[in-house]
Amino acid sequence: MNIGIIGLGLIGGSMAIDLKRRGFAEKLKGVESDSVNAAAAMKIGLVDEITTLEECAGSCDMIILAVPVGAAIKLLPEILDIFQKETENGSSCRKIVIDTCSTKEQLIRTVHYHPMRMRYVATHPMAGTEYSGPWAAMPGLFDGRACIICNQEESSPAAVRIVEKMYDCLNMRPIYMNASSHDVHTAYVSHISHITSFALALTVLDKEKNEKHIFDLASGGFSSTVRLAKSNADMWVPIFSQNRDNLLKVIDTYIEKINAFRKAIDEFDEKGIRSLIEDANRIKRIIR
Amino acid sequence: MNIGIIGLGLIGGSMAIDLKRRGFAEKLKGVESDSVNAAAAMKIGLVDEITTLEECAGSCDMIILAVPVGAAIKLLPEILDIFQKETENGSSCRKIVIDTCSTKEQLIRTVHYHPMRMRYVATHPMAGTEYSGPWAAMPGLFDGRACIICNQEESSPAAVRIVEKMYDCLNMRPIYMNASSHDVHTAYVSHISHITSFALALTVLDKEKNEKHIFDLASGGFSSTVRLAKSNADMWVPIFSQNRDNLLKVIDTYIEKINAFRKAIDEFDEKGIRSLIEDANRIKRIIR
Repeated sequence: MNIGIIGLGLIGGSMAIDLKRRGFAEKLKGVESDSVNAAAAMKIGLVDEITTLEECAGSCDMIILAVPVGAAIKLLPEILDIFQKETENGSSCRKIVIDTCSTKEQLIRTVHYHPMRMRYVATHPMAGTEYSGPWAAMPGLFDGRACIICNQEESSPAAVRIVEKMYDCLNMRPIYMNASSHDVHTAYVSHISHITSFALALTVLDKEKNEKHIFDLASGGFSSTVRLAKSNADMWVPIFSQNRDNLLKVIDTYIEKINAFRKAIDEFDEKGIRSLIEDANRIKRIIR
Repeated sequence: MNIGIIGLGLIGGSMAIDLKRRGFAEKLKGVESDSVNAAAAMKIGLVDEITTLEECAGSCDMIILAVPVGAAIKLLPEILDIFQKETENGSSCRKIVIDTCSTKEQLIRTVHYHPMRMRYVATHPMAGTEYSGPWAAMPGLFDGRACIICNQEESSPAAVRIVEKMYDCLNMRPIYMNASSHDVHTAYVSHISHITSFALALTVLDKEKNEKHIFDLASGGFSSTVRLAKSNADMWVPIFSQNRDNLLKVIDTYIEKINAFRKAIDEFDEKGIRSLIEDANRIKRIIR
């Protein structure tokens, strides 16, 4: 199968590596708007060639849209338009396009009435690191993680089956969810972690003017908690903006919890502090 | 040198492993109030024998107090009392006691006027994991990290030199700070990370009732950000309580930053969100 990847960053690049070495992709074409990233992706050998969106969507069996969700909202209808043109002489289109974005509702709504909607499968592979760009791509990034497939009833069953096969090749387990649940649950688990981590970095940079102190006093704990604060603005600005309503709810709950700690500490309420910590410790049963 | 370790948990146990295998400790004695942990420490082979505080402080050249700071405040004067008794027949005491606690001001104040104060060296090795107990002890835990030595002018220079040698054997680089700066800076960098992580766990457990969703949607990012929420209440309750004033200040700054995100997201202010994220990204230069 010939695969085209739009966006050769961490996700697109890592998919390229594993789909090629595991034999799922015969030929890999890449589309990348940033010329430095495009040149690097070729040099690293992530794809066989760099091409345009039109050529890529015209010549590949599957297109993977691995760009920030703001760009995906623009590009997904363009790709479906190209698919549609191919059916104008009466032939049917068997091409598939998937996205890998972290918010789903708006993107899916954008193409809801597109005549080629069935050729699109909405997916969210739950994997990543805090790094970005083609040089961040790595083999095995997806192994053992979950991949959410949204609103699969709106996609062609045959297309869904091929996409499932592709994620199986990436060693991911599929989970089926509707777009609106997806956005609620990712806000509750994934997006809020990014906000807390960005805020932690801002706090430490604000309070601790001596950077050497930050370096020295950062035990493994701080590094791990602040890791996501290295994440890329291009990716996260549209996610926060698109998932606004769900995020505001979870941020409010988070502020309540921080205030509960603040109050217990302020009042020297050691029993209260202990009960908050022991409650939080329940996360151990879920995340090992 | 014969070394006695009071508290055979993550820190005490990991020190035991490296001090023994690197030849700094000849004989290692352990004191552990929890009988299960004591038996496990013997079975794992962390120490050569389990003994009482009195016997340990009476027979060892160096005592390492690796207990939560609440317990250290009680035990440190008792150990210095034992040292003092040995000088009653006119002989001098060359024994040393150190602690490894994460807050320093109150502990140091507790023994400020003790006649044996010079035999105590206040230290804080900046290393750890979210696990506790003797089974969490691991070789190499301290390698390459910083160790803070507080108020060293209040300790005997000879004692400080021996303690520096010991930390050198653990591959730690010493940093010198007074107790009150130590408590400010650890609040700013280390303690706040724990609060944000505990609050994140509480938030996710509160909003996301379906534990399977937490498990499925937790990409590496969430796991890393919530890691510290597994930390032990026995250790953290006294730290939060003793470092109250510094912590309240940094919690207030943190709440400001979270509210700045909340406001920008609420107002769909993508420029504002971007600027917060890019500001937070500056942490990359410090923490790799």
